[in-house]
Amino acid sequence: MTQITADGATSVAEAVATLARAAKTASRSLATATRATKDAALHAMADALVAEAPRVVAANAEDLERGRAGGMAESLLDRLELDKERIAGIADALRELAALPDPVGEVVRGSTLPNGLRLRQVRVPMGVVGMIYEARPNVTVDAAGLALKSGNAVLLRGGSAAARSNEAIIAVLGDALAGQGLPRELVQSVDAHGRAGAVELMRARGLVDVLVPRGGADLIQTVVRESLVPVIETGVGNCHVYVDASADVAQAVPIVVNSKTQRTGVCNAAETLLVHRDVAPSFLPAVLATLGEAGVTVHGDDETRAAAPSGLRFEAATEADWATEYLSLDLAVKVVDSLDQALEHIRRFSSGHTEVICATDTRAVRRFTTELDAAALIVNASSRFTDGGQLGLGAEIGISTQKLHARGPMGLAELTTTTWIVEGDGHLRT
Amino acid sequence: MTQITADGATSVAEAVATLARAAKTASRSLATATRATKDAALHAMADALVAEAPRVVAANAEDLERGRAGGMAESLLDRLELDKERIAGIADALRELAALPDPVGEVVRGSTLPNGLRLRQVRVPMGVVGMIYEARPNVTVDAAGLALKSGNAVLLRGGSAAARSNEAIIAVLGDALAGQGLPRELVQSVDAHGRAGAVELMRARGLVDVLVPRGGADLIQTVVRESLVPVIETGVGNCHVYVDASADVAQAVPIVVNSKTQRTGVCNAAETLLVHRDVAPSFLPAVLATLGEAGVTVHGDDETRAAAPSGLRFEAATEADWATEYLSLDLAVKVVDSLDQALEHIRRFSSGHTEVICATDTRAVRRFTTELDAAALIVNASSRFTDGGQLGLGAEIGISTQKLHARGPMGLAELTTTTWIVEGDGHLRT
Repeated sequence: MTQITADGATSVAEAVATLARAAKTASRSLATATRATKDAALHAMADALVAEAPRVVAANAEDLERGRAGGMAESLLDRLELDKERIAGIADALRELAALPDPVGEVVRGSTLPNGLRLRQVRVPMGVVGMIYEARPNVTVDAAGLALKSGNAVLLRGGSAAARSNEAIIAVLGDALAGQGLPRELVQSVDAHGRAGAVELMRARGLVDVLVPRGGADLIQTVVRESLVPVIETGVGNCHVYVDASADVAQAVPIVVNSKTQRTGVCNAAETLLVHRDVAPSFLPAVLATLGEAGVTVHGDDETRAAAPSGLRFEAATEADWATEYLSLDLAVKVVDSLDQALEHIRRFSSGHTEVICATDTRAVRRFTTELDAAALIVNASSRFTDGGQLGLGAEIGISTQKLHARGPMGLAELTTTTWIVEGDGHLRT
Repeated sequence: MTQITADGATSVAEAVATLARAAKTASRSLATATRATKDAALHAMADALVAEAPRVVAANAEDLERGRAGGMAESLLDRLELDKERIAGIADALRELAALPDPVGEVVRGSTLPNGLRLRQVRVPMGVVGMIYEARPNVTVDAAGLALKSGNAVLLRGGSAAARSNEAIIAVLGDALAGQGLPRELVQSVDAHGRAGAVELMRARGLVDVLVPRGGADLIQTVVRESLVPVIETGVGNCHVYVDASADVAQAVPIVVNSKTQRTGVCNAAETLLVHRDVAPSFLPAVLATLGEAGVTVHGDDETRAAAPSGLRFEAATEADWATEYLSLDLAVKVVDSLDQALEHIRRFSSGHTEVICATDTRAVRRFTTELDAAALIVNASSRFTDGGQLGLGAEIGISTQKLHARGPMGLAELTTTTWIVEGDGHLRT
């Protein structure tokens, strides 16, 4: 899809490039801004959203009406909907960002070399952060706030279903920035260019410094496959809990239940339970009873079925269950002969997000935490702790399951890069 | 190009996937290996290369003969050629790697949370590192050594011109690994599958963890554009030296000459000199005379021409000169009105590698080092210091001009990722 845009650009590619260049220029004013300036802007953005809530709610109502007319599912309509309370919550998140330390300017490493050269590696903003996401207008504010605090401009693609909401939010945020003497071009959208805008955003290598997709697996995989701009991938969590022969059963039961049921639609929820044969007789009946009470459907092997209490919703596990991220009150359960068999199963089906071991034997813990390869390896605690807030990292952009740049919960620092600053006194290389 | 391979795989994609899976399995034995084991393997590899030098030289002679018959340029033949002395040098580089600290196991961050959870973020190997490079068989050894020290298996694509040399080297390294009880599959090549092997290596997302292209700009750009595997880009250096009004002229002249001439065919050599108008009358004649003596051709603006001593090789600069990475004894020279104009010029033409300022005014230094965006910003020293060895990082994989994962000289740590290890005592999320 190519179109003549209002400003006379002859193609979407040119229009997106123009937006990205304006974003880069705007980002320069932030790169050298003090933390005080950025925090004041975050507070101004929060205040403006609250003050202009009626305008945003009215725009959102148009999106909702179009969604209902188009037969959008209730759960999606719920994600799309904004009211005064939700807007207040979104504004509070901006104020919490203001309370976090500034990642920019942190000296990551530094030294004076034997020849007297002074080195320091300093955190600096990326420049222009691209974000592609689905119809959740809160992400628009979230992305703008995270980018601003880390010194970056943001170029957004929020999806047509939330177009009016996002347009209103971006206008409100732009006014707030302008009121603080900062350029409106710090927060821009390519949504006016439809799907072609998203495509050109992915192709804008050299103009956009990093692209962060947020949403379902399909969206993320499309961006990973098609983007020429470097991507930070947030991903799927097919998380396992392994209960070792040495496990403390009284401790392991609540860990499994918490990992599965504390919240289900999230990437750090457990999806498969592996139980060592030696502990199965004491552990399985207890955990299955408690899971049943919590409303969990168990997809188990024959030995799990044999231990299942009457009334438990049980289905025979197929090969597909081991690979499934249910994101619901379902759990695959398998009895294994050994730690080795558990490690082998996890290696085969892990998505590299979070793996949990319940064990008291240090040798089992040592093998689990050194022989597996995942963003987080958790010992005797719930899988739900793989979370930026829970691990004390502050605001979370997402949880990376890739190995480059960031792995696991990503905070503000992951939206920065570094520069080496080298100071000499006429030093020459010989 | 699809072919039936000897082992019965029905396509190159399957064959490369099989190699990558074998590499992943092999890498597991390294992930938990001690530094002592890895260093012993590096020494064994070095000793084997020296002992088997005649075999490698004989294979190399076949490549050279084929190259000569095909009309390969002398400079490329020189890069391709291996003799006993060069092999000894390559082996020494492996021994130097053995002397470096092990990046694996380093605790990057760690803390105990208020709730008692113990956190540590630990460096772990990537797994399988892919490397695509041109006809320099020393890179084969280099890549194998860097990967091994950082706990990774390597899957190589070395180019057909060096096929026999690389085959011999990989066989020798494999024997050395096997002699140490390590799997041969730690060092493998896709060269048997020709160009299709390179294509499938770039497509092996999920099987290959990171791809490092090494070579000319065309090779690197092709890999960046086509790879689905995350790439660490090593890049072009269109490096500037800016001589401020406040520069110490006696210090600035040798810095410019060293930045341009200490070595020319490298990414951290200076390509453009920007001179503040106020210092031009004293600085330009001095630097042009010295550059002329060093055999440099100056591509300058009118004011530079006016200051050029007779006998200097001078050409009028065109717009293209500002964008050119000469990699030769050529230097673009321009007089600017102000620091602002210098910053603007650099922003426009910089490749984000290294920018140098010669200045004594702290305000100028402060603006240069905070308003520009490059991997290295150097004050009063030669651009040639942007180098892993010079900055004390040990072995260098390349110099990254990308912003994700690594920026500037990359050492062994950049071939690792991290894992969060979280230890609790039955901790649940509430």
